[in-house]
Parts: sequence; structure tokens; C-alpha cells
Amino acid sequence: MKMKRSHRLVDMTHYLLNNPYRTISLPFFVDRYQAAKSSISEDVGIIAEQFKLSNIGIVETIAGASGGVIFRPKVEKDKAMEYMNQLTAKLTDKQRILPGGYFYFSDVLGNPYDLRHIGNIIASAYYGQSIDVIMTMATKGISMAQAVANFLNVPFVIVQREAQLTEGSTVSVTYVTGNDEVKKMALTKNNLSADQNILIVDDFMNGGGTMNGMLSLVEEFDCHTIGAVVFGEADNQKNYIDYPYKSLIKVKKTADNLDVAGIELGSLFD
Amino acid sequence: MKMKRSHRLVDMTHYLLNNPYRTISLPFFVDRYQAAKSSISEDVGIIAEQFKLSNIGIVETIAGASGGVIFRPKVEKDKAMEYMNQLTAKLTDKQRILPGGYFYFSDVLGNPYDLRHIGNIIASAYYGQSIDVIMTMATKGISMAQAVANFLNVPFVIVQREAQLTEGSTVSVTYVTGNDEVKKMALTKNNLSADQNILIVDDFMNGGGTMNGMLSLVEEFDCHTIGAVVFGEADNQKNYIDYPYKSLIKVKKTADNLDVAGIELGSLFD
Repeated sequence: MKMKRSHRLVDMTHYLLNNPYRTISLPFFVDRYQAAKSSISEDVGIIAEQFKLSNIGIVETIAGASGGVIFRPKVEKDKAMEYMNQLTAKLTDKQRILPGGYFYFSDVLGNPYDLRHIGNIIASAYYGQSIDVIMTMATKGISMAQAVANFLNVPFVIVQREAQLTEGSTVSVTYVTGNDEVKKMALTKNNLSADQNILIVDDFMNGGGTMNGMLSLVEEFDCHTIGAVVFGEADNQKNYIDYPYKSLIKVKKTADNLDVAGIELGSLFD
Repeated sequence: MKMKRSHRLVDMTHYLLNNPYRTISLPFFVDRYQAAKSSISEDVGIIAEQFKLSNIGIVETIAGASGGVIFRPKVEKDKAMEYMNQLTAKLTDKQRILPGGYFYFSDVLGNPYDLRHIGNIIASAYYGQSIDVIMTMATKGISMAQAVANFLNVPFVIVQREAQLTEGSTVSVTYVTGNDEVKKMALTKNNLSADQNILIVDDFMNGGGTMNGMLSLVEEFDCHTIGAVVFGEADNQKNYIDYPYKSLIKVKKTADNLDVAGIELGSLFD
């Protein structure tokens, strides 16, 4: 479809936002818009400029025959902090504390607005790294994993506490829960292939048992853990994790472990 | 930030795409871009034109003092069919049939590309309807629910097979599975308030037990079911559902129920 610059910019902006981390050849746009390569280059320049100013991300032009343009979402730290301050204010609410000192935040992980911000912040923390797959644990990590996957444009896989009958062969590992119980987690065999780069994403870390389980599951599949990030972690509990994981928030509990004393920014912002 | 039309169009396109189903006042954009209201109106006109041409959705301008602009995603049927044909071709693969005639499609529901299309298609099927919350069942429905929620810009809630200890009070209902077992499903009480309009989204329907359970759960919360949609349904099994649900695909099984005979488009495309 032949169109004016203004219309091209609208369509191209939408196209790039929907295809992050993918090299798009300039001839593709030349053909799509029936425009000269030089005009397309100028369009890309305008979008790159504005994406940076608007904190949307970086649009890079790759020169040469196999060249093209690639958009990688990236939110700068100050913009991320704006959202995080708003989030921690919302989470600092006595009504969020449940019997046993548990902390209610499912509404956040079920809200597209929050998920877009959280996904963007985590994707930006691993900006430009080569990630093939996001791994998470059912059920509460799923929405976060999907949000991150959406910004990095890679698939996500879901580890289950029990192997589901309907899914074919699985690989399973045992892990120790916070209550010293030994449990099993499993992932469908054809969900991963050897040598893939994995980003582990989960909702909350108390003792670190689940995270340790996922770290060994990655090894079982002969894959590589590129990063591990949780939405929240309990601050004054010992997390026996031999991996430099990151968190978005730290939940400080009272000495008796029954109440939340406060919420702080997590290690992702260090 | 003061900027040229071309740059404004890029930023405004991104802004609208990130804020579907939300009325944005023109003064907001006037302030954001330090531009005259007439220029902003022209910008909106260009974007509305291109969003329609590019099958992104409808941008509506609301006149008057409390007026503004609202973007609702909508993919036209022929574009949706293009994707669906590509999807059913991918799904028509002998290797997807697992012991017992189960059908493997988790990779589709774990892929951001597919989820964007599926979410957009379902959101478009309920275009312009007043939906407050998406409801789904753990775990396989979650990614679809999130994808739809993202296009309708409403939260989604997750029904669990067992009440999770960490979530406070729950409301539960019993339902009958395909194997005539009686099971319980539960939802956290503060996930819904009375009188909300619910769109139910789930991955697959065999006998309809799960769907029936969710339909009664909606009633238990004094809410209203606006629609119910599944990714796939088993075609030659009787689904005892007293509700006009929709499906994206129908999976035809062989007479002995152990194999997949074919995949067809579901009732959403009737």
C-alpha cells in the first residue's frame, strides 16, 4: 500500500512494537509502503529518535546486504522508578497481609497495566542479552513470564508441580520447600532443546526452594541460565540460592514473621 | 515536550496502543505535545485512518467537554482467517497427538506471536462490549486470558482447582469432570465484586465440566457472564453446556476417540 510519511510512521511504529528483537530488512518496508529506500531510512530515523525520547526503546539500523532494522524495548531507570514508587505505595497496605504473614499481590500480576510495566522493566534489565526461552513455575509466575516474553519476543515454558497427564514425556527434578518437604517439579520434554539460553522468572521467593529446583531443571535439559528474577522476595529469610538472582521488591517481615514491616525496592535496582 | 507532527504521531501511536478501551482527553495530548488542539485533532485523524487500514482497530473521537479519543483493537475477519489458516496448518501434525488422543498445543499458548493474534481475535469478537474482568482456570487458560485482557485493558482472575493457602478467603463450587468425578474449583473472594461483567476464557473443552463450573462461579459472585470462549473444543463429544460459548478451533477425533482426525475452525468464525 502506497502512503504518505505520516501514515507510514503510524503503521511502522505499530509494526516495530509488535516485532521486538527481530531484524526487519529495509526492503520489507520498501515493499510494504511502495516507497524509496531513502524515505524508509528517514522514517526509521524519526521513529528511532522518538522511541528513545519516549523511553520506548532502541531502534538500531544494521548496514549491509543482510541489514535492516531491529527494535529492542528499553525503559530507562528513572521511568522505571516512577512506576515502582507508585507500585510500592499501592502495595503498602495493611489489608494485603493475610493470615500467616502471607502477602496478597495477585491483583498486580493479573492487571495488564502493571504487567506491561513489570515485563518491560525485566526485559530492559536483560537488554540485548541472548535469551531463547523464559521459564516459570505454575501458577503465579505465568503472567509475569508472559509479560517478559512479550517484550523479548521469545516463548515461555511452564514448570508444573505435578506432571500433567496430557502433555507427553516430562523431565522432573526434586526440590526442598520452605517447610523442608521434598517435592517434584516437571517440564514437558519437548518444551526445551539442549543448549538454549534461559531466563527464569517467578512471582515470589521465600526460601528459594522453587528457584533452586528450576536452576537444576535447566541443567537437566543441558541448557544455560542467563538470569533469574522474581517479583518479590522475603527480605529477612535466608534464601539459599547459589545464583545472582534479582528481585523487583523486597518484603520486610516483622521479627515474628507474621506481619509485613515494609516494602523496599529489590536488587534489580541496585 | 514540544515536537513535530511526525514525532507526535510516533509517540501517540504508541500511547494509544498501550491504552486501549480508555478515553483520553484531547487536552491531555495538547499538554503532552505543547501543540494546538486543531493539530492534535488532525494527528488523531491520521492515526484513525491508518489504524483502520492496517487492521489495528478503531479510533473514535468523542465530542464535547468530557470528550476525547478512544482506541479499541479490532482485527477484521479476513485478517483473522489468514492467521487461523496458518495456525491450523501448524496444528495439523501427527506428532501433536499424545497417548489417549490428547492434543499437544502448549507451545502455541506459550508463544507471544500466537498469543497476540489469539488475544486480538477474541477481543475483536467481543468488540465494544462492556467487559470488566476476564476469568480463566489454572493453569493452561492463563496465557490466553492475559492476552485477551491486554487488548481489552481489563484485569483477569484465575480460578484454581484447589484453594491456595496464601490467598485469603475463597468462594468455591463443585463441578463434574469428563470422568464423572466431582471436583472443587475456587476463586479468591476479593478477586471479584458483585455485578461485574465477566468474559470466561479457557484453553480446551472436552466435556464442558470446567466451563460449567466457571459459569456457576460467576453466579456465586453475583456477576454476569458476557461471553465464554475456548481455544479448542473436542468436536464429537457432547458438551453439556447451557451457554452459547465460542471456540477458535474444533478438534475432530476418530471414532475410537484415540486419535485426531482433523482440525476445523471453531464457532467463533461462524
